[in-house]
Amino acid sequence: MQPLIGFRDFLPASCAERNYIFAKWREIAGRYGFVEFDGPVLEELDLYKKKSGDEIVRQLYEFVDKGERAVALRPEMTPTLARIVAAEHRQFRKPLKWFSIPQVFRYERPQRGRLREHFQLNCDIVGEESPEADAELIALAIDVVRAFGFTAQDFVVRVSDREFWTELLKLEKVPPDRWEEMLQTIDKSEREPREKTEERLGKLAKPVFEIFEKGGESAKLNNIIENLRLRGLADFAKVDVRIVRGLAYYTGIVFEVFDRAGKFRAIAGGGRYDQLVAQLSDNAVSLPALGFAIGDVVLGEMIRAHTTARAQMEKTVAAERAVEIYVVTAKEEQHGNAIATMQRLRDRGYRVDYSLAGAKVARQFRLAEQNGARLAVVFGDEWPQVGVKDLETGEQRSVAHEELFAHLATFPTLSSRA
Amino acid sequence: MQPLIGFRDFLPASCAERNYIFAKWREIAGRYGFVEFDGPVLEELDLYKKKSGDEIVRQLYEFVDKGERAVALRPEMTPTLARIVAAEHRQFRKPLKWFSIPQVFRYERPQRGRLREHFQLNCDIVGEESPEADAELIALAIDVVRAFGFTAQDFVVRVSDREFWTELLKLEKVPPDRWEEMLQTIDKSEREPREKTEERLGKLAKPVFEIFEKGGESAKLNNIIENLRLRGLADFAKVDVRIVRGLAYYTGIVFEVFDRAGKFRAIAGGGRYDQLVAQLSDNAVSLPALGFAIGDVVLGEMIRAHTTARAQMEKTVAAERAVEIYVVTAKEEQHGNAIATMQRLRDRGYRVDYSLAGAKVARQFRLAEQNGARLAVVFGDEWPQVGVKDLETGEQRSVAHEELFAHLATFPTLSSRA
Repeated sequence: MQPLIGFRDFLPASCAERNYIFAKWREIAGRYGFVEFDGPVLEELDLYKKKSGDEIVRQLYEFVDKGERAVALRPEMTPTLARIVAAEHRQFRKPLKWFSIPQVFRYERPQRGRLREHFQLNCDIVGEESPEADAELIALAIDVVRAFGFTAQDFVVRVSDREFWTELLKLEKVPPDRWEEMLQTIDKSEREPREKTEERLGKLAKPVFEIFEKGGESAKLNNIIENLRLRGLADFAKVDVRIVRGLAYYTGIVFEVFDRAGKFRAIAGGGRYDQLVAQLSDNAVSLPALGFAIGDVVLGEMIRAHTTARAQMEKTVAAERAVEIYVVTAKEEQHGNAIATMQRLRDRGYRVDYSLAGAKVARQFRLAEQNGARLAVVFGDEWPQVGVKDLETGEQRSVAHEELFAHLATFPTLSSRA
Repeated sequence: MQPLIGFRDFLPASCAERNYIFAKWREIAGRYGFVEFDGPVLEELDLYKKKSGDEIVRQLYEFVDKGERAVALRPEMTPTLARIVAAEHRQFRKPLKWFSIPQVFRYERPQRGRLREHFQLNCDIVGEESPEADAELIALAIDVVRAFGFTAQDFVVRVSDREFWTELLKLEKVPPDRWEEMLQTIDKSEREPREKTEERLGKLAKPVFEIFEKGGESAKLNNIIENLRLRGLADFAKVDVRIVRGLAYYTGIVFEVFDRAGKFRAIAGGGRYDQLVAQLSDNAVSLPALGFAIGDVVLGEMIRAHTTARAQMEKTVAAERAVEIYVVTAKEEQHGNAIATMQRLRDRGYRVDYSLAGAKVARQFRLAEQNGARLAVVFGDEWPQVGVKDLETGEQRSVAHEELFAHLATFPTLSSRA
């Protein structure tokens, strides 16, 4: 019995790594004043058809439910956000700064770094058209990656502006119904042979490749880089107009985060989508918006490939998972005192385990160590004294059981909230 | 545009309540030495057909995917756990103490307290047949509910033993192929008219109702209650053989948690399923196991209906969501200093926000208060001094900007990890 192809089981070690990633995401989003929301894992198919990019629509994990509804496992979070915002925005002051950590799905051939599901941090600002919001969002994207131990040597945000290209399309009199195709071609140009891109671009090829060679820039883009410089984050970002983003709904500044070594797919990406809320609400509500997403799969690969980032993750995960106190029953008659005390320890917030089946004393100590316990508390002949053994130092002492809590308080790294 | 019927949007306030529930679940499971795992939200349909109870199979959220696979959104977590354990158990010492917080799905008519999706805490012990494991699991179920501020006046665990009833079925020579039907009828008897139950039970009706009237007990059940008494938890549990549980795979001790006032559905339930791992692995692996689940919907309703529990939740949620420091720019020329300082504050772990669009100073202070900020840090004419206003006390002082961090450290409730 296997999980479905493209889906992951999270055994405890990998679940702890996933939770480490989620916790950092929540922490950094919180520092920027973002609050968490969530939506359904299943939505009406119509929410995605046409509003998302072609690539997403082709890969939708869609089906017809028992009630004959055309539905899809969410391929991305932005349409859900736009739907909620269109319906509920009146109860909130603008701008909204919202984040979410959805699991998202696509039906495509699974390959390295691309499964049929993954988790994403999504951070969005809704109701703010100032470019300050674009800078704030890009700064957040940088800090989300920095939080894992990466530096400006490890990654860079390539910042672009779709308007830069739509201006060119206007200038070159490309009919609007061909814009999406042209933008997609520009977006894919790095990953395609030059001839293929030239063929697709037709008469646009010449100006586009000229821009690629001399680099493009704009006052808006320079303004954002300057804002990042004020924040001390300039080393993490550069203008690069080759970034366009695959989704149909982007309207302005767009950006993608890459590892500098070029070993991985894009780590994160996002941008402005000022029309999406209006489109999804049939123009009942119009709100400018922008956001980005970062997935757990590529980020996880990158962490595991990076000495410092990996060590930081392993240290945190080990500390959070370990049992702190292992209760050892050295005399069977002490079982009652042992579990009564264990309950009080757990009530005070300590992580405590013991041998459910009973076992020889030596084996109980071995289990304590295998569980990563810091202390063993031993119930035996000495009762009402109990033994407290520090499994790090090997030091053992005898403590009156009513003084046990005071003694434990001398170990500041234990987690009790008492 | 609405979410699909039976699915929830989690706006920030309700998402924070959900996360409060999840955090408590994780904390209490950790105190008992449980580690988290997860599995796919989508599994092969075969994993559930026949192994789960009839009710679950009837309500499966099933479909055929684009690859012609019969799949289902998971209706419960136990089959996934059993699948993973059967495949991977060799890498782990027994017993496993594992928990998970899956979202689970069913396709039925939505009604109060029963949507088409909800989240569950699942806690399972695998590889331990000792009744001590049953007591440990029931103690954990009790502590999970207590953690929200409920007492023995608010809820009770009704503990039963399926073997108590299967012994009777043997004694009365009921053919094994009718056992599940009989057990389901006994399980439903509290919610059905007596005549209906009698009709379904046939010749079993007399002994069953006799047991209902005089109460049933067994040495195993008494043993578990005694273990809970040693833990100081006896007031939270009672033997009640009317509990049978609807799922087909239970084999021994079963239990359900109810509010004493009888206002809600069962809050939690679980029991032993010693044969499931063997069944799902075609007898390749046989491991005794037991577990329980508690859902977020009924628990959430119960918290909101309980003065103390509700106040505890609201207090925690408010503290965790609030921005701590609001950066006020009183002079536009100070914008650069303001956002440079803001970046350093966020780097140290403070939750910091500011007005993206810029605003009059009075409005920035109002925004600071509306965001629940504890402090406003003001950048204006005084630079390189900055103003620090305590928005709780109204006290304001001027601090050299390089001494700002030392000053902030005097507010111990702020979250900096520096």
